[in-house]
Amino acid sequence: MNPLLHKVSTTRFVCEPFHSDFMGQLTLNVLGNHLLNCAGEHATERGFGMARLNEEDHTWVLSRMAIEFEELPKQYESFEIDTWVESVYRLFTDRNFAIRNQEGHTIGYARTVWAMIGVQSRKPIDLLSMHEGHLSDYVYPEKPCPIEKPGRIKVSAQMPSEHFTARYSDIDINGHVNSIRYIEHVMDLFSLDYLREHPLRRFEIAYVTESYFGDTLDIYIDSKSNEHQVEIKKGNATICRCKLFFS
Amino acid sequence: MNPLLHKVSTTRFVCEPFHSDFMGQLTLNVLGNHLLNCAGEHATERGFGMARLNEEDHTWVLSRMAIEFEELPKQYESFEIDTWVESVYRLFTDRNFAIRNQEGHTIGYARTVWAMIGVQSRKPIDLLSMHEGHLSDYVYPEKPCPIEKPGRIKVSAQMPSEHFTARYSDIDINGHVNSIRYIEHVMDLFSLDYLREHPLRRFEIAYVTESYFGDTLDIYIDSKSNEHQVEIKKGNATICRCKLFFS
Repeated sequence: MNPLLHKVSTTRFVCEPFHSDFMGQLTLNVLGNHLLNCAGEHATERGFGMARLNEEDHTWVLSRMAIEFEELPKQYESFEIDTWVESVYRLFTDRNFAIRNQEGHTIGYARTVWAMIGVQSRKPIDLLSMHEGHLSDYVYPEKPCPIEKPGRIKVSAQMPSEHFTARYSDIDINGHVNSIRYIEHVMDLFSLDYLREHPLRRFEIAYVTESYFGDTLDIYIDSKSNEHQVEIKKGNATICRCKLFFS
Repeated sequence: MNPLLHKVSTTRFVCEPFHSDFMGQLTLNVLGNHLLNCAGEHATERGFGMARLNEEDHTWVLSRMAIEFEELPKQYESFEIDTWVESVYRLFTDRNFAIRNQEGHTIGYARTVWAMIGVQSRKPIDLLSMHEGHLSDYVYPEKPCPIEKPGRIKVSAQMPSEHFTARYSDIDINGHVNSIRYIEHVMDLFSLDYLREHPLRRFEIAYVTESYFGDTLDIYIDSKSNEHQVEIKKGNATICRCKLFFS
């Protein structure tokens, strides 16, 4: 543990024009991108970033994410994201986030759940024993993250409502559809009228399997009032599941 | 003119993981986004940014862009973008860019052509007479931008090859498909195999008309060896035209 490093790191952002939607609000995919970048930098500074892990043939895998907010940053506004590790278990670690607007008011929180796997073996790594247990050095359960943990998502729709084909812009350096693009495709299910009248308040995603360039992905939706559960499948295989709550 | 402000401004970036493509290179749409942000900040600092213009009921309109490069920044690498104004004419102004990799080597250039219009009238504003001619204060034709100006693009294909529908993620605060998303849709025409074997070297785009949420846009393509000309149309109306040169 480096005593000069705080358990919480804070990064400042500005809501750029091309990161703003038709309402002039930060898009959820850009917010998700920022959260994951903050996670990456926090981990790297503390010795457990992707580059270091890759040397040991290990890699982080994002399993679940929940983002909940009362408002989103507006175009040209600055905002800050805190990130810290809430807990480390044998197979998973919980990393949380707080989002503050430019007045310093906390406007949202996020929770993420990560596993670590062997790059070659694809098997889970014991987080408590790796690096002589140093992963737990920065655990900070004292900082509150007052939103529900990501829960179970179950979609019962039998017929897909939409589909899309994974293209160049979807694919990351590992050859997979990147985790942020699923958020974008799910948000694209909604009309501007719906989004204008029903502000999004919570978004959850659970990643199950990877998908690849050229894959045709089917989208199944269960809607109940302002809650929508979405499943993205490739044939019979679930790629990811999402749950959206609009007010 | 503020004597403390240089004619050229320089901004530093890092190629983030979610801004990298399957080859670990900065995507062209993110590069375009960065160029336009640099333009916005350079203009704002010198008193002719969007916010100031909007107060006077004027707005900048991007007419053309050409980006040419020998390589693109790689994931996690830093890079810098210079921007400056090459010339101001009555109806158009030319703004150029240079892109340097983290070793300080110039890896690419870009040229943009802008007009200014009245927000209400949609009519062009005389750039030489507005703000008492101060727009010309920062003109810096001495700095070289050794790439060809954006030229004429003419697509003769009679049948569309692809189409897409403008969705939530395409739309900006003005209710239009944002100028960067067209770049993304055009890049998505190509397979990973093609892009791997034929590195993109030049991309040009000419914006003609706006498109809106729900519009179905047809894509027409003329290909000749490694040069592709692309036209995006809504019915008979041209929305934009692109030209791509791969090596």
